[in-house]
Amino acid sequence: MKQKTLSTIGEFGIIDIIASRFKKIAEKNIAASLGDDAFSFIAGKEIISITKDMLIEDIHFKKDWISPFDLGKKSIEVNISDLAAMGGAQPKYIFIGFGAPSDTEIVWIKEFASGIFAACNKYGAKICGGDTVRADKITISITALGISEKIIKRSGAKDGDLIGITNFCGNSAAGLDLLSKYGAKYHFNRDEKNLIKKHNQPIARLKEGAVISDFANSMTDSSDGLFVSISLLADASKKGAEIFIDKIPISPQLKRTVADKDKMLSYLLFGGEDFELAFTLREKKAEILKKLLPQISFIGRIKSKKGITFKEYGKKIKIDGAAFKHF
Amino acid sequence: MKQKTLSTIGEFGIIDIIASRFKKIAEKNIAASLGDDAFSFIAGKEIISITKDMLIEDIHFKKDWISPFDLGKKSIEVNISDLAAMGGAQPKYIFIGFGAPSDTEIVWIKEFASGIFAACNKYGAKICGGDTVRADKITISITALGISEKIIKRSGAKDGDLIGITNFCGNSAAGLDLLSKYGAKYHFNRDEKNLIKKHNQPIARLKEGAVISDFANSMTDSSDGLFVSISLLADASKKGAEIFIDKIPISPQLKRTVADKDKMLSYLLFGGEDFELAFTLREKKAEILKKLLPQISFIGRIKSKKGITFKEYGKKIKIDGAAFKHF
Repeated sequence: MKQKTLSTIGEFGIIDIIASRFKKIAEKNIAASLGDDAFSFIAGKEIISITKDMLIEDIHFKKDWISPFDLGKKSIEVNISDLAAMGGAQPKYIFIGFGAPSDTEIVWIKEFASGIFAACNKYGAKICGGDTVRADKITISITALGISEKIIKRSGAKDGDLIGITNFCGNSAAGLDLLSKYGAKYHFNRDEKNLIKKHNQPIARLKEGAVISDFANSMTDSSDGLFVSISLLADASKKGAEIFIDKIPISPQLKRTVADKDKMLSYLLFGGEDFELAFTLREKKAEILKKLLPQISFIGRIKSKKGITFKEYGKKIKIDGAAFKHF
Repeated sequence: MKQKTLSTIGEFGIIDIIASRFKKIAEKNIAASLGDDAFSFIAGKEIISITKDMLIEDIHFKKDWISPFDLGKKSIEVNISDLAAMGGAQPKYIFIGFGAPSDTEIVWIKEFASGIFAACNKYGAKICGGDTVRADKITISITALGISEKIIKRSGAKDGDLIGITNFCGNSAAGLDLLSKYGAKYHFNRDEKNLIKKHNQPIARLKEGAVISDFANSMTDSSDGLFVSISLLADASKKGAEIFIDKIPISPQLKRTVADKDKMLSYLLFGGEDFELAFTLREKKAEILKKLLPQISFIGRIKSKKGITFKEYGKKIKIDGAAFKHF
């Protein structure tokens, strides 16, 4: 009999294997646990949030497609994005796990380290330790610790809440596709370069996360795409959601680059790594938040009935498609 | 001109690249930083210590040589060992970064997860989150968080201090060499099996670390071998050390398995992954600690003059050799 392998169960399958043996932590000082963007616990008057993300060469990035500086910076930004999603927890301490093949050029590592440092400095976070090992592929495993007074979990969405997103969707995935199709040396036009930049140089919505935390019931980042983010919020809150397709914000660059409607929809719903924040809030709070953060859009509504449905210009539509699969 | 690569500078070279851009953290709430077994900071009345270790297939282990259960357990033990080295910080929260190829068998992952859980349960530590990704090789990146009232750093060794080690040296490296030479399916004798077990099933000296913390000036674990551990303690403390070769404890199994004197010395000084604790303390405290932990040995002395020298039966000797190179 053929052995079942990882490809048959996917990333969420692994999480299930782990979670099935995992007794729900019910300690009173634990504020958020498995199933949120970060793990959070109470220490004195503060909440400490810890997140961990891995980036592996040829899986999450190709050395030809991203400069070592940008890669270092991105490695930090994607972790800060998790802290942003907890309600803008202030990044304090960063731990760097780094593996590299023996033939990695020193100049590459120096540039990579510069990117790491630039991002940490920007957020006032300190590099506090880690582990460096030999590996066949560049392997980056960052742990980031942030501190805040309160946190926003994924599980607080309420029936009737509006669903918000901090900015454009799909840019990063479109940029990745351009790199994948033409390689990094192709003569891209200005729009295309801009989309690639969104992929290689994402910026965590840390300040936005802190502002939104005063208004939102639930929040997560859009690292695996908008559809996955909204599903995570709805599932964690034991609710469903309706997505307003026509309200999803599209950048001018993406609009000019992608002509096909289905392809556009695929980027908007399933394109990962935009690192925007998806959140829910009571409708009455929407107007004042929009004044504070004009770039946000409201792109759906939480429903009591489970499952995700779609509307376009007020009419129900059906959409086939699966979320980005890690495995 | 040929580009300089990682192989020319080694692991400590990378740490230098990172450290050279790293402003020494001088916040008053930071208790231990880069250059210790863990990063420690003060939160309320407690000290929180965080450590991170990576294990990569075909670099740190081969799937043929270790069961998935043992690998899961070892992944945790090596991190707990760092907490032990900080003075027995109580493990609280564990974060698991895990990468695997798509063709990894589910049964392998389940067994691996069981090993992780067994080790966490043993120490009362909770699995709190992490990241699962696709990777070409099994990639394990664990972050462990422990809590204690005080910590022991590497930098507190004083001139004249005795150097102690919690138990036998060299077993793990000898076990690894047996696997490397004969493969896992060879019919090993009982001694050889025991050495392999020491490699595959290390046990963190957590309780010992807590006991020693009441006596020691400095401490680290012997993950990279005894010589490296003593060098780290001496360097961090701006001192030197004398190692008493004839006092290094040798297990009966290792004694019966290794006949060659140079090979034995190489295991004792440079063999990694024993995960014993190396520490320094004032000589007057040695007797009472030995009563509490009879298995410890005193195998050297801190000297004011920098550098590491060797004695055998009271006579100075010269030893050539380099510590285990990661790259």
